[in-house]
Amino acid sequence: MDTKHFAVILSGCGVLDGAEIHEATILMLAIKKAGHKWYAFAPDQYQADAVNHCTGEAMPESRNVMVESARIARQNIEPLDSLAPESFDAIILPGGFGVAKNLCSYAREGENFSLIPALKTVLDKARELGKPVGATCIAPILLPKIYAGCRITLGNECQASEDAVKNGAVHQTCTHGETVVDERYKLVTTPAYMLDADIAQVAQGIENMVAEILKLV
Amino acid sequence: MDTKHFAVILSGCGVLDGAEIHEATILMLAIKKAGHKWYAFAPDQYQADAVNHCTGEAMPESRNVMVESARIARQNIEPLDSLAPESFDAIILPGGFGVAKNLCSYAREGENFSLIPALKTVLDKARELGKPVGATCIAPILLPKIYAGCRITLGNECQASEDAVKNGAVHQTCTHGETVVDERYKLVTTPAYMLDADIAQVAQGIENMVAEILKLV
Repeated sequence: MDTKHFAVILSGCGVLDGAEIHEATILMLAIKKAGHKWYAFAPDQYQADAVNHCTGEAMPESRNVMVESARIARQNIEPLDSLAPESFDAIILPGGFGVAKNLCSYAREGENFSLIPALKTVLDKARELGKPVGATCIAPILLPKIYAGCRITLGNECQASEDAVKNGAVHQTCTHGETVVDERYKLVTTPAYMLDADIAQVAQGIENMVAEILKLV
Repeated sequence: MDTKHFAVILSGCGVLDGAEIHEATILMLAIKKAGHKWYAFAPDQYQADAVNHCTGEAMPESRNVMVESARIARQNIEPLDSLAPESFDAIILPGGFGVAKNLCSYAREGENFSLIPALKTVLDKARELGKPVGATCIAPILLPKIYAGCRITLGNECQASEDAVKNGAVHQTCTHGETVVDERYKLVTTPAYMLDADIAQVAQGIENMVAEILKLV
């Protein structure tokens, strides 16, 4: 079996202001257990905010998305603008509010949000090359901005799924452990912590997502 | 099957100044997959330092151990001094330099280190009650200070294993996925990232540790 190379795009470190730690870690584990390799990327920029994860309140701090993401990577991490999709077999975006705050302006602007330029460049290129893309939790919200009319899941019907539909997505509800595959664009999404899930349910969905992506590589 | 209740003691969020994120997350996943529950605790105190995980250099910041640990917990987390061992079936300490920096003075003082009072109180009580204790990576370094002559592993022979022996431990080398069980004191240790391990090897060791602990509960 060929070793496949996955680019994992992180958005910080912690569900309330960065990448969701369980999802990102479990994703790395699922890729490795399947016999493949992952490489971490994140934007080298200030986070939108830093949130106290005990209280949910903003902290008077400035943190860098890539520097904090490196806590999860615990190995080399590269700036997002150095990610060349042609060098990878697939690209995966774990969730966390960092996706909505640091990878795009969704948290601030709602449905009329835009992606940060580095991410738009990566995903435009991935689409052009037909590279499979995976996304968990809130991260599928990004996809209709790049893939017109794509089919995704954000779990149950919710504000985010309504906004995705306004941006042209076909939203398919799904439950714990399930994935939604858009064959045309090679997109695989799973709700993870968009649902009221436990960590084992999240792991099941992410393992299934990695398996579906491997079929599309 | 009875649901068992595991207290997980975190020491921050990130291998260089806190709890090792992969180990902590995989531990939570292993407990849940085995059908049990975990509860997070951490000392409500400033971290010894904050380290840039891209460069390894100190950052001019003050972070709180419990507040940062909450990023990994992503659910309720309680101060370590509220942990009552009699309310849990077992206690587990994942690794990361946070153990050596925030849970004790090992990073600063070497072999003659001491545990922070809240942790000493918890482990003294756990020993008195015969509660199983698990520890991964560098965390077993703590145990000989509480459990005289205990058998532990820190992976290969290394400075930490020498220091543990000076503190009275019997050190047993072990490799990826293996655990060392001290039946007398009900201690289970596994090297995790003390070895040059990949995330799947770490997961195997932690799953085995949880299985061994369940035999002792």
